[in-house]
Amino acid sequence: MSDITIREASASDWPQIWTILEPVFRAGETYSYAQNITSDQARQAWMELPAKTFVCAKADGELIGTYYLKANQPGQGNHVCNCGYVVSSAARGLGAAATMCNHSQEVDLALGFRSMQFNLVVSTNEGAVRLWQRLGFTIVGTLPAAFKHPTRGYVDAFVMFKQLSPA
Amino acid sequence: MSDITIREASASDWPQIWTILEPVFRAGETYSYAQNITSDQARQAWMELPAKTFVCAKADGELIGTYYLKANQPGQGNHVCNCGYVVSSAARGLGAAATMCNHSQEVDLALGFRSMQFNLVVSTNEGAVRLWQRLGFTIVGTLPAAFKHPTRGYVDAFVMFKQLSPA
Repeated sequence: MSDITIREASASDWPQIWTILEPVFRAGETYSYAQNITSDQARQAWMELPAKTFVCAKADGELIGTYYLKANQPGQGNHVCNCGYVVSSAARGLGAAATMCNHSQEVDLALGFRSMQFNLVVSTNEGAVRLWQRLGFTIVGTLPAAFKHPTRGYVDAFVMFKQLSPA
Repeated sequence: MSDITIREASASDWPQIWTILEPVFRAGETYSYAQNITSDQARQAWMELPAKTFVCAKADGELIGTYYLKANQPGQGNHVCNCGYVVSSAARGLGAAATMCNHSQEVDLALGFRSMQFNLVVSTNEGAVRLWQRLGFTIVGTLPAAFKHPTRGYVDAFVMFKQLSPA
């Protein structure tokens, strides 16, 4: 996607970011946030708790995606980064998720992280699993029945991992 | 350990709990907390953020162990519980960890959790790995070099999981 830019989010981006996140969180099929999460709770989880939050914007300024970045653990695990990415429903399939994931890996390395971990990739989210694998992530663990899918019931989730710099 | 009791922690237990936790967090060999964590930060992480915190007391009232219990994820992953257990150095090898782990599984089931996940069991903490395996936990994932051990460098960590009720 050559006509999109990724930049750090500012507080004034929140209404547009929430427009992207809300349908995904309400659907509850891919991310483990409370389906009835409020805008304020989501803003705290997506904008305040993470180390950084980015947005993906089209040339006309419209936001089509967002991701957060944070250490997955404090202390002796804080060289492993964790990110979460959401693309607006209108922009699915255009490569924004891959663009954001590649961007996040560059940011991670610049910040001194050595690897990246996704803690809960829902096994039924097959497009995402394939995308992360294509971008170099490996399924390093399977969490049995760890996600309660709203229509498919208890389904497995994957832990996915990518080494960014040699251990 | 027939002469010990497990009860919910109260705020006034914190100084004794911190006496148990502090050397473990400072050593930084088994848990991923900042080694320079303050008492206040540790109290928040151990007593306030979790759903419940328990202490393990000898007959004379001395505390020899503590554990916390919380949902490992919000939303669609909130049927999976996460716990952390620490035993005082003076009481190691007496079975307090196993007693607390078994206790936590009963509490989890009573609270409606279906399974339990440990997110970061340090691979060099071999006694703990063996204990959790003996208590029915399985290594479901290996996180490569995910823990920076203070003397052994980057070592693997395990994700361990136990189903408490049929999925």
